[in-house]
Amino acid sequence: MLEPVDLLFVNAVVLTMDTNLSQYEPGAVAIKGDSIVAVGFESDLRNQYLATETLDCQGKVLMPGLVNAHTHVPMTLLRGLADDLRLDVWLLGYMMPVEREFVSPDFVRLGTQIACVELIRSGVTSFADMYYFEEDVAKATAEAGLRAVCSQTVLKFPSPDARFYEESLAMARDYIQRWKGHHLIVPSVAPHAPYTCTPEILRASAELAAEFDVPLHTHLAETAIEAENSRQEYGMPVIPYVKKMNLFEAKVLAAHCVHIDDGEINTLLHNHAGVAHNPSSNLKLASGFAPVSKMLEAGLNVGIGTDGPASNNDLDMFEEVRLAAFIAKAVTNDPTALPAHLALTMATRMGAQAMHIGHLTGSLEPGKRADLILVDLNPLHNSPRFRRDTNGVYAQIVYAAKSSDVSDVMIDGRWVMRSRQLLTLDETTLLEQARDYARRIDTFLIQREKSILSKLIAIGGATQGETFEVQAKARIEHPAPVLEALNSPEIEILYRRHYHEYDTYFSFQDPSQGYLRYREDEFIDDKGQISNVRYRLTLLGPAREFQFPSDVLLSRSRFIAPATHSLRFYREYFKPVGEASIEKDRLRWRVLYQGTEFYINLDNVLQPSLGYFLEVKSRTWSKKDAEHKAQVANHLLAFLSASSANTISQDYIEIVKNLS
Amino acid sequence: MLEPVDLLFVNAVVLTMDTNLSQYEPGAVAIKGDSIVAVGFESDLRNQYLATETLDCQGKVLMPGLVNAHTHVPMTLLRGLADDLRLDVWLLGYMMPVEREFVSPDFVRLGTQIACVELIRSGVTSFADMYYFEEDVAKATAEAGLRAVCSQTVLKFPSPDARFYEESLAMARDYIQRWKGHHLIVPSVAPHAPYTCTPEILRASAELAAEFDVPLHTHLAETAIEAENSRQEYGMPVIPYVKKMNLFEAKVLAAHCVHIDDGEINTLLHNHAGVAHNPSSNLKLASGFAPVSKMLEAGLNVGIGTDGPASNNDLDMFEEVRLAAFIAKAVTNDPTALPAHLALTMATRMGAQAMHIGHLTGSLEPGKRADLILVDLNPLHNSPRFRRDTNGVYAQIVYAAKSSDVSDVMIDGRWVMRSRQLLTLDETTLLEQARDYARRIDTFLIQREKSILSKLIAIGGATQGETFEVQAKARIEHPAPVLEALNSPEIEILYRRHYHEYDTYFSFQDPSQGYLRYREDEFIDDKGQISNVRYRLTLLGPAREFQFPSDVLLSRSRFIAPATHSLRFYREYFKPVGEASIEKDRLRWRVLYQGTEFYINLDNVLQPSLGYFLEVKSRTWSKKDAEHKAQVANHLLAFLSASSANTISQDYIEIVKNLS
Repeated sequence: MLEPVDLLFVNAVVLTMDTNLSQYEPGAVAIKGDSIVAVGFESDLRNQYLATETLDCQGKVLMPGLVNAHTHVPMTLLRGLADDLRLDVWLLGYMMPVEREFVSPDFVRLGTQIACVELIRSGVTSFADMYYFEEDVAKATAEAGLRAVCSQTVLKFPSPDARFYEESLAMARDYIQRWKGHHLIVPSVAPHAPYTCTPEILRASAELAAEFDVPLHTHLAETAIEAENSRQEYGMPVIPYVKKMNLFEAKVLAAHCVHIDDGEINTLLHNHAGVAHNPSSNLKLASGFAPVSKMLEAGLNVGIGTDGPASNNDLDMFEEVRLAAFIAKAVTNDPTALPAHLALTMATRMGAQAMHIGHLTGSLEPGKRADLILVDLNPLHNSPRFRRDTNGVYAQIVYAAKSSDVSDVMIDGRWVMRSRQLLTLDETTLLEQARDYARRIDTFLIQREKSILSKLIAIGGATQGETFEVQAKARIEHPAPVLEALNSPEIEILYRRHYHEYDTYFSFQDPSQGYLRYREDEFIDDKGQISNVRYRLTLLGPAREFQFPSDVLLSRSRFIAPATHSLRFYREYFKPVGEASIEKDRLRWRVLYQGTEFYINLDNVLQPSLGYFLEVKSRTWSKKDAEHKAQVANHLLAFLSASSANTISQDYIEIVKNLS
Repeated sequence: MLEPVDLLFVNAVVLTMDTNLSQYEPGAVAIKGDSIVAVGFESDLRNQYLATETLDCQGKVLMPGLVNAHTHVPMTLLRGLADDLRLDVWLLGYMMPVEREFVSPDFVRLGTQIACVELIRSGVTSFADMYYFEEDVAKATAEAGLRAVCSQTVLKFPSPDARFYEESLAMARDYIQRWKGHHLIVPSVAPHAPYTCTPEILRASAELAAEFDVPLHTHLAETAIEAENSRQEYGMPVIPYVKKMNLFEAKVLAAHCVHIDDGEINTLLHNHAGVAHNPSSNLKLASGFAPVSKMLEAGLNVGIGTDGPASNNDLDMFEEVRLAAFIAKAVTNDPTALPAHLALTMATRMGAQAMHIGHLTGSLEPGKRADLILVDLNPLHNSPRFRRDTNGVYAQIVYAAKSSDVSDVMIDGRWVMRSRQLLTLDETTLLEQARDYARRIDTFLIQREKSILSKLIAIGGATQGETFEVQAKARIEHPAPVLEALNSPEIEILYRRHYHEYDTYFSFQDPSQGYLRYREDEFIDDKGQISNVRYRLTLLGPAREFQFPSDVLLSRSRFIAPATHSLRFYREYFKPVGEASIEKDRLRWRVLYQGTEFYINLDNVLQPSLGYFLEVKSRTWSKKDAEHKAQVANHLLAFLSASSANTISQDYIEIVKNLS
């Protein structure tokens, strides 16, 4: 008695990608509903199953769909926007400003749909994503019929979908609750990276992921500077640091892991973390060479990802697998390293395991979902085929085949491409909409090219102070009461500095450009001698995020660059329409007050002669924290003898301008 | 009055790839016969030219065809034959044995035709080739309508098309004379590499190339071991060594140049050499990372090549250009290194210059040949297109576009592909013939897998002694006269050694397998003490290349491996059917006699007790040299008091076998 099934694939070269790398030729696969029922030789399966439909694969390779273990799919809309740039210029000068302006649920949906076309066409059936408005990514992915781990990003600074991380975490919780158990989408939370998250974000994300038993997706140890900073700031490398933040309470999918040592590899292994290796992105952004062979030898599940199409610049897993194999050989100086069969395992079964969905997909095995592709190895660029060695077919796929050799794609038992015809998406409409976005982004950037910020970035080295700052300021009559108050036990002084500052402010035709400040900081030592001089350029945006009661300000992060050129150079380069100079003497303290750290500036503005000012400042990352600090800052200002009647909300340049 | 032209391309994004990287959109190109007449904005050219045919490019990119600066096209027939192996195992275990068996004019023609299909389909219009039977490569290339520098290989050991290098050089001269001036083919000579050529080959090749003013194509400094060996053997790195061999009298195209220093880069520059960078091959074979950025900064013409399809495994220049840009960034730790426009310049104009055909092709400029391609940037994987930055289009082509985006290819004013339909080659027939070769090669290798050599290679470390050896041998009565003769002034002794040797010979069912010898060499010092022991495995082939008069032999190169396992291991592993042991005492001298270096072995065969033997040996590379040395060896044997009546042509194992 034959067992009934829905579909029987026959006459295929079946590559199961299971742990034994079983192959069947001529092979067959039986499908019932969304799942694989049996895999084996055609003769065996024909004797066992009665199929509603039998599909002759005509000698093509039938294998599990590829798994793209790390990407940011909506960024297809930013592909080719800016290339061959330093990471800070690329990220701060182009990606982030454009994302801030354009990323919306609509943008994310369109970008995802375009990505899904490209992914299906190149044989990808599952991917791990991380972006903003992730629920819209999930919706578009499910509609297109792909399987994905969709991770809602959480960041310590404002993002296109949240002004504060508390909002992102709340969005993530809400989204995970609603999507958990979906047949295609595994919802997830993505604290972006250790250096873009506070300890609280890391802890809260891990708790959230553990509570719902969903994966936690993050970037770890991508660049040398990240690893170095972690050592300097926390006294330990990246992996121990995030372990200390309880990250591994969750099922972690860690992208990159370029700069990790043997101990960190072991920590990842013992905490059941998966790794996504992104060779194109690591090369293109010059991040370095990940220790892939070592991770594999240790027994880690290492998948392969394309990373976002803005840093790759495509989603082609065929290119990515080939590159992974090539790079591993060159880096280990061993041509036998990462052989083709292992590279293809990483791009299928192991990638699914790294994403913590290995029970669902990644190999052709009974019980797994029917996520599979047909690959035609007949095109001339794949020929000839040698049969002496069963590993030859993996080498053909990894070293010679192209994404265009994928002819048919099935996900969760449903066809999404037949004979290279897409069944769930309409390319023409998507292309038109993409063109429209490109036009608008071009216009935005062409406008912005005229901006001071862009020019600042263009000459290099501009870094964004990654801060919000709570600031309270007051005009005072005399410094003596302040100096006295600083001696009181309520205030713990952490350090004291003395500067003599010469500031030159450039102003521009368009007031929305803000001011550019060129500052010479003379460091004055205890004997009143100049011990050092520092030159800095700061762009002061006109924007204020918030104004709290009593003139307490929440100011936006500002771009700061070391000024390595002369004032004359900057005058010629930036062509300001106005210029103003301010000379002042500044005493500066870092203090603890009511358990909070503040900077106190006691300024004597000498030129023009404006008298004494007192500033109280503190950095913050969250709205709640900012509100709290605004209140304490106000208390501190009052405590330091400044009557609240004298509080002001202006920068010195604004005071000077009002005078002139 | 309008000037008549044959063809006017209009409505194109014209990328000229000239030195200014001029772009025209909407742009036009005017063609007359085989050449470009004008390049510019469409409006300008329409006002200037009257075309027999006007071709609307529908907004596609019109650019020079890609230039593949180093490959071995017939090796398409060996694609995927053996991958993920060490270079020696890959080359000596697979490539060379298969080439020796299968490479013929027919093989070369078919392999070239298959390559031409792949090259045209991926937008390549010119390439630089190096292989055997190169005139047949040239014929097939010209028939397919591609432009190429076709270089006849010269090697110091036997090759599929020549037993001695004198034959190869004669073939090269003959071929260059007949093909010089061909409208598509530039004939050339290719001394394979410094380590596979004698000084005489390098000098003669350079003279030949200079005489006919054709390029000289070679591999230089591909691996670290090549560079290291050059320093040890010649006391200088590879580039100074080949300069000393007068190589730069010719116009050199040097493939790889992975392991060269700043001084060597300058030497290449000052000698107007071109370089072909092969990123895929260098990674896949773990050769290393070429200093591409340094070479470019120095001002060298560096092209990009795929290398042969057996070490890549394809001829896709889109993949290669992308990889070149990626690798340069990662290696220099600088994401701005090798930007897209420069990578594409390397793959077009600079590649043609490196091949010394920059006056003919590589850019769209009036006077150059009409070698051009249309690339469609509309497919979704290339979208969207941003227009803010004129460099964006190069980034699209390098980082996102695929070879399948090439729609039309014209070479020398003649169409070879229209709308992806090939016009000069029939894929179906070629594929069938390739399948037939694959079947035969599979059969050959499956047979050979049973061979001792393969098993020797399979356990690793087998290296081919790259020698022919002239050998004269005689049985002698007593050693005293020999020792006396060695003191005479006609012989200059370079050094003397004393060994005690225990040899175990394995024999096999199939006598054509030869013998496998396991040798323990005890090094005896002046006090008669054992100072060192060496273990070696040597495969003694049954084949004799030649027998000169008086039993002087010319023996084939043999495979030697250090024996790191026990005799027991080898016995179990190789399963010999017979075994014989020989113990002997050997005195060995390296001497100069009549201006020639010889090794003299004075052996006392103790077990079985065979008495004294005298051997005179010398290495050789050419037929002429071998004939000369055979004569001198015979004189030396006579001089050492051995009467010619006692000369023998047998190995010890053969003598022992005859006794038993």
